[in-house]
Amino acid sequence: MAKKKQDGENGSGLSRRRLLGAAGAAGAGGLVVGAAGGAVGASMASDDGGSGARLTSLGTTAVPFHGTRQPGITTPAQARTVLVAYDLEPGTDRAGTAALMRRWSDTAARLGRGERPDADGQVALDAGPSSLTATFGFGGSLFDKLGLADRRPGALKALPSFPDEELDATRSDGDMLVQVCGDDALVCFHAVRTLQRLARGVARVRWQMTGFTRSPGATLRPMTHRNLMGQVDGTGNPQTGDADFDAKIFIGDEGAAGGAAWARGGSYVVVRRIRMLLDAWDDLDVPAQEHVIGRRKDTGAPVTGGDERTEPDYGRRGPDGRLVIAENAHIRVSAPEFNRDATMLRRGYSYHDGFRPDGTPDAGLLFIAWQADPRQGFVPVQQKLARGDALSAFVRHETSGLFVAPPGCPEGRYVGQELLEA
Amino acid sequence: MAKKKQDGENGSGLSRRRLLGAAGAAGAGGLVVGAAGGAVGASMASDDGGSGARLTSLGTTAVPFHGTRQPGITTPAQARTVLVAYDLEPGTDRAGTAALMRRWSDTAARLGRGERPDADGQVALDAGPSSLTATFGFGGSLFDKLGLADRRPGALKALPSFPDEELDATRSDGDMLVQVCGDDALVCFHAVRTLQRLARGVARVRWQMTGFTRSPGATLRPMTHRNLMGQVDGTGNPQTGDADFDAKIFIGDEGAAGGAAWARGGSYVVVRRIRMLLDAWDDLDVPAQEHVIGRRKDTGAPVTGGDERTEPDYGRRGPDGRLVIAENAHIRVSAPEFNRDATMLRRGYSYHDGFRPDGTPDAGLLFIAWQADPRQGFVPVQQKLARGDALSAFVRHETSGLFVAPPGCPEGRYVGQELLEA
Repeated sequence: MAKKKQDGENGSGLSRRRLLGAAGAAGAGGLVVGAAGGAVGASMASDDGGSGARLTSLGTTAVPFHGTRQPGITTPAQARTVLVAYDLEPGTDRAGTAALMRRWSDTAARLGRGERPDADGQVALDAGPSSLTATFGFGGSLFDKLGLADRRPGALKALPSFPDEELDATRSDGDMLVQVCGDDALVCFHAVRTLQRLARGVARVRWQMTGFTRSPGATLRPMTHRNLMGQVDGTGNPQTGDADFDAKIFIGDEGAAGGAAWARGGSYVVVRRIRMLLDAWDDLDVPAQEHVIGRRKDTGAPVTGGDERTEPDYGRRGPDGRLVIAENAHIRVSAPEFNRDATMLRRGYSYHDGFRPDGTPDAGLLFIAWQADPRQGFVPVQQKLARGDALSAFVRHETSGLFVAPPGCPEGRYVGQELLEA
Repeated sequence: MAKKKQDGENGSGLSRRRLLGAAGAAGAGGLVVGAAGGAVGASMASDDGGSGARLTSLGTTAVPFHGTRQPGITTPAQARTVLVAYDLEPGTDRAGTAALMRRWSDTAARLGRGERPDADGQVALDAGPSSLTATFGFGGSLFDKLGLADRRPGALKALPSFPDEELDATRSDGDMLVQVCGDDALVCFHAVRTLQRLARGVARVRWQMTGFTRSPGATLRPMTHRNLMGQVDGTGNPQTGDADFDAKIFIGDEGAAGGAAWARGGSYVVVRRIRMLLDAWDDLDVPAQEHVIGRRKDTGAPVTGGDERTEPDYGRRGPDGRLVIAENAHIRVSAPEFNRDATMLRRGYSYHDGFRPDGTPDAGLLFIAWQADPRQGFVPVQQKLARGDALSAFVRHETSGLFVAPPGCPEGRYVGQELLEA
């Protein structure tokens, strides 16, 4: 989860402002915009990058679709996500895919502004956009099916196998990924349904997952989000202000080499459904949990002291001569400084889908990590984690997908146009 | 969905106020209460009974657990619910059940105040109670298992079969029901997990379902909630101010006759998972949908005119001589005036659990309806709906459960004590 939630990725700086002043033109039942002031809520969210503003304007907050980046990457994490992977229907060609991407882009832009996508079927009527975003990605299989192998970026290849993963192929991969995020579940549902119906005859749903994070305003002080283990998760995320942020998260010249110039400014996303073995985890006492992670459960501070923002002291040893942050503590094994500076923007969501046949919770993390090159991000980090992370005993990677998200598009164009029409 | 969300069912009148002024005593990581004012948000929720207040104090709003009624019945619908049905483990006796109900009640009260249930395992750390409620009910099978047949209320018997239902027994019924509701998904998850762990060795999860409704602040004007068909749903709900509200919703002397005096002040809840055939529904145009329901899709007004609050004119005929609100329109078939005044407090949630093997959405309504006597509420209405409701062609009842919720308890006692210890 992004801790300092970034936005403004579209260069407009408007994503937290209410953009709906004139949106009431949808006719009977059309949108009427509240006129609540924007100053309240600051006491609860003075530095968490948006939830304070979202708290008093949850419905009316709009995230622009058009821009140099797609929304939903550096956008502050909304309360809810629905991930939907699609496979092309047999016979769908490049033109059909292009037409779908145009419909999807146009509709995502309309929904993001809180406009009705069409005359009918508007279940989210009466609601504002509620920070709705739709983010589109392409899987490697799409390039094969559409005869676009020569434009496939070098980093878009099958992820290697990792020890102890138990992947469900039917819920992994896919020709296309659509990540819908928003602060209202009905708005998200409506967007998912609308986009699905636009795909009829062109692409069919391969898998679908729903996740949640904190509701804006739920936490009593600004905090990095917690996962279902109760751990603060995302403290180490890169910040948009970092000098090398763009280079680490968005595809640059090197990643756009060969026939992949269209991908420049896009990003790779790794999506993994990571089930948590919560019964085993919850049977550990808090010191044992903190030993596994390397951070305190209450504050998120490193076990070497300070607060959440304090740098971990990886060299410190206790009176017994042992490292305070254990050799296999999760934060040590995953830290960029021990992974050749490998960096990902983690923007994960929790999931809780009831329980499994054995009675254990079907719950965990929808790991969603954005990066400029998975060969220098996810892959080496996961290889290290799978070997040496104490947390590995408490999680199971159940699904996996790698997608390349094209750059954003300006108004009048659609996401992926440079790939599909070049 | 309750339209005018009622609360104050605990007689305290405090359920929408922030009760956490002194809750910061939980030690390291304990709760720190925001001091946001309460006046903002009114413009967006002037008459929807609480979402305005919740919008600016989403995390800090607390619903009292103790009182003459259990919370979660007339409480304004929170954004999220998790329903969990339990069966007693073999060998669990009355004393073991009583001990569980005491643990559950004490913990639900603590969680409702935003207090940590114990030293460990607090995943909702940093969050306020977020209007968390836990509501407990007993199924008929509990009375048999515990030798309490003589205290079983007369109305707690198996629901009759209805035409066209396709019930999944494994997700129906149960010895006990716990309805958790709250405005933050992580707070709900934490409560569900905490209650589940308290049940270990005594009761095991039989089924579990998750639902959602609007996030506070998502709608741009005060509105009754919409279901996944896009229809305003809950307009006809009884209001707490109605003269006969208590008599219609809560168990009175007649319902507490025989050995069931303990049930007085409780309520029956019917829980049905009603899948919507959304592909078929969405293929109808809006006039056809409005003909099925009898209300306009945009405003929720009866098709005979006015606004959402206007009484339907069931006798009006159009120029063609036909009834404007069709003979089989949903609002006509379900209206109390055509059902001997049968009344339920519907407090349903939408669900969306991906898609089914045939590719259709696994989505619909978690129908949750509270009433003083299902023999005069749900049963006759559903018998009529199953025969003559135009909406029936677009829904499938997949699960069913009937539970009796005991009355609320004062501090120091637990829900169900009068039954289990009498």
